[in-house]
Amino acid sequence: MVRSFVAAALLAAASPISAQVHASPLVDPKVASLRDLALDRDQHAWDIVEGLTTEVGPRLAGTQAEARARDWAVTRLTAMGFANVRIEPFDMPVWSRGFESAEILAPFPQRMVVAALGNSGSTGPEGVTGEIVAFDSVDALKAAPDAAVRGKIVFVDHLMPANQDGSGYGQFGAPRRQGPTIASQKGAQAIVIRSIGTDHHRNPHTGVMTFSDGAKPIPAGALSIPDAEQLVRIIKRGQPVRMRLVLQNQTIPGQSGNVIAEVPGRDPSLPPVLVGGHLDSWDQGTGAIDDGAGVAIAAAAAKRIMDAGRPLRTIRVVWFGAEEPGLFGGEAYRAKYGKQPHYALIESDFGADKIWKVDSKLGDARKAEAEAIGKALAPLGIVTGKFDEADGSDIGPMLKDGHPGVGLSQDGTRYFDIHHTPDDTLDKIDPAQLRQNVAAWTAVLAILSGGIEEPKARKRR
Amino acid sequence: MVRSFVAAALLAAASPISAQVHASPLVDPKVASLRDLALDRDQHAWDIVEGLTTEVGPRLAGTQAEARARDWAVTRLTAMGFANVRIEPFDMPVWSRGFESAEILAPFPQRMVVAALGNSGSTGPEGVTGEIVAFDSVDALKAAPDAAVRGKIVFVDHLMPANQDGSGYGQFGAPRRQGPTIASQKGAQAIVIRSIGTDHHRNPHTGVMTFSDGAKPIPAGALSIPDAEQLVRIIKRGQPVRMRLVLQNQTIPGQSGNVIAEVPGRDPSLPPVLVGGHLDSWDQGTGAIDDGAGVAIAAAAAKRIMDAGRPLRTIRVVWFGAEEPGLFGGEAYRAKYGKQPHYALIESDFGADKIWKVDSKLGDARKAEAEAIGKALAPLGIVTGKFDEADGSDIGPMLKDGHPGVGLSQDGTRYFDIHHTPDDTLDKIDPAQLRQNVAAWTAVLAILSGGIEEPKARKRR
Repeated sequence: MVRSFVAAALLAAASPISAQVHASPLVDPKVASLRDLALDRDQHAWDIVEGLTTEVGPRLAGTQAEARARDWAVTRLTAMGFANVRIEPFDMPVWSRGFESAEILAPFPQRMVVAALGNSGSTGPEGVTGEIVAFDSVDALKAAPDAAVRGKIVFVDHLMPANQDGSGYGQFGAPRRQGPTIASQKGAQAIVIRSIGTDHHRNPHTGVMTFSDGAKPIPAGALSIPDAEQLVRIIKRGQPVRMRLVLQNQTIPGQSGNVIAEVPGRDPSLPPVLVGGHLDSWDQGTGAIDDGAGVAIAAAAAKRIMDAGRPLRTIRVVWFGAEEPGLFGGEAYRAKYGKQPHYALIESDFGADKIWKVDSKLGDARKAEAEAIGKALAPLGIVTGKFDEADGSDIGPMLKDGHPGVGLSQDGTRYFDIHHTPDDTLDKIDPAQLRQNVAAWTAVLAILSGGIEEPKARKRR
Repeated sequence: MVRSFVAAALLAAASPISAQVHASPLVDPKVASLRDLALDRDQHAWDIVEGLTTEVGPRLAGTQAEARARDWAVTRLTAMGFANVRIEPFDMPVWSRGFESAEILAPFPQRMVVAALGNSGSTGPEGVTGEIVAFDSVDALKAAPDAAVRGKIVFVDHLMPANQDGSGYGQFGAPRRQGPTIASQKGAQAIVIRSIGTDHHRNPHTGVMTFSDGAKPIPAGALSIPDAEQLVRIIKRGQPVRMRLVLQNQTIPGQSGNVIAEVPGRDPSLPPVLVGGHLDSWDQGTGAIDDGAGVAIAAAAAKRIMDAGRPLRTIRVVWFGAEEPGLFGGEAYRAKYGKQPHYALIESDFGADKIWKVDSKLGDARKAEAEAIGKALAPLGIVTGKFDEADGSDIGPMLKDGHPGVGLSQDGTRYFDIHHTPDDTLDKIDPAQLRQNVAAWTAVLAILSGGIEEPKARKRR
């Protein structure tokens, strides 16, 4: 485990400002104090992610497990003292996984580890059997004549790199996002891809894809990376390779929902600050880094502000439902609240490793506020990025609509080792790095919420 | 991956003796030269382990897959030029895995990842359902009154450490080796243990166990380590925990065999040097580190001696069958050859990470030979250990009988991350460390085989 090493480095780099160290006069001392207290001792985030992943575990969008997660969330957020805790339900199609297996029949019989991609067609219980036709990229698949693909099982390879900014996922995710549609259009009976990931474990990476342009759904699975490499070695021997693939999936109508909780502002007429993450997870892990950590960080930071006093603006915590199958929760929130002004949107959905960069898009008139955020985060080892950029999954469409936002980027170097695999479990979260996340979010919320008024009993006179 | 870092450190520590570096006069220059050539460029070992794991893949003892591995081995060893290549078959009971699953039914419904232990009883297709009773060790299980265990599903935890010498495996393997028998004797309906391993992936560690003292076979499985930790968190919530466990296994009569190949010595009347590894693997990985690497290292080193000329003593390469379920191949060899003298026995069965220590048990009369081995290995970064100790799996019983032996210890720090899991695949082998293994074995064989006579055509005059 790299855990203890990273934690030590982190603490060394971003220890709380002690009485012996002079802090920058450019950072509000109250903001600095809240930040450092979170870094030193936040326990809220760990308790949430530990509780959610243990007491609910996997929570696939639209399933009973996700419904249990919403009930758990309401109980927990209410107990934490949030106001206006509520579930806002919405309907959606619910895809779920059944039995799945992959087996090389010839020339070298052996089983492989496979996971259906979200929205994969089903092979039925008897499976499909066919010859493998292999491509090193989606571009190569696109360029192939239909006759080379028709009736076969397509395999698409790639070499996604592990980058701090997670930039491999966009470009190298093409086999998952576009591969199934192209394979279907060319008449393939099924497709398997090298998992979109950066590890070397026998844990395949699932993830959503959509058959577009009228393409007929075909079975679509991801092989674990060691299996994909094994398949390439087998193919390179030059003999025809036959695979039997069983992916039994189904899609039925169902329901999900967003869970919302608030820290009421002193001036309810002001636009709220939205902080969020998503409550659903894929079905094979317990959704610790994706996105138990995110909902935990968002709520923990809001809780720390709430405990410090009353903010000027309302902080609205949103635990979105059904992000994984296609941002259903974000769209439901947008449909209901998207026309109302928001002071800022922030979402945590990239694990719980150390935040290394802050971007924002608050508009020219709020440049000083954006700069104050950067100054407040620098002692956590966070670089200030761009002033015209903010990103997020569920909040993405609303950011595109023009709502202001802040983006806190976690280190993504090992994120895609774990992402969408059975390995997304609590042990992958480093408590010290999680606290650094909460510290950063707390500082951002302290600034965005417009000044905290301490409770009267504790007010200094 | 730690791979490139380790490889670089290894090469830095053990680069071939160049013309600019004076070598110890205590090491035979011919031995040093064979050693350094192997370190620099051995390809035989990689080709064997790559070929075996790709073209055969998993090869559970007694199955058709293991029979394919024997055929593959005969073809490969013959092509490499070995003499007297043969299969020596033997009968054995063949245990194999069927469908398996574990599910927490209450209080927090969720699936867990489980693998049956070798020789586990079968639950049948309907599985068993019961309340979990948890113990932190086999000692705690032993101490429990039968009434606390009867009719329940036992869970045994432990905290095996990752040590360079692999010493955690003996002590902390007790839940697997003794747990099932004790649980059965106390009337448990099944047992699940925390995998005997040191990783944090959802890949359970299988391994053999035996029901002793007349204990009735019960279903016995290993949870992956993240699942075991999750189960502990669930148990600590204080509510009764119910699990449904399905482990469908069977045992039928079958056959395995040892594959033997030789480099004939100039004096066939002298006792041979036996170098081995085991050909079978568990069924879920492709048996790269356990023990594709071992058979590859043994044969590669023998091949390098063969290519250099004719040794005085015969080198006998033995790829044992059916090691995993209980050293059947070793016992078959011992039954046939155990009364005959052997000059030395060596076996590689601990992965392919860097060798860090050499022990030997050649007897007082051969102390100088043992010391020469130590001197020849020191430039590879290998410490000389004891002169009264040698170890091995299949060769273990013969060593106990008093046959001389040499033990080359690989670094075991990450061995039990992978051991007996689906993750035992080719990508876990670092080619540079594998070459260091071959270099060490080549040097040892060059010394033990008693002097190589170069082929006449190439002989210097």
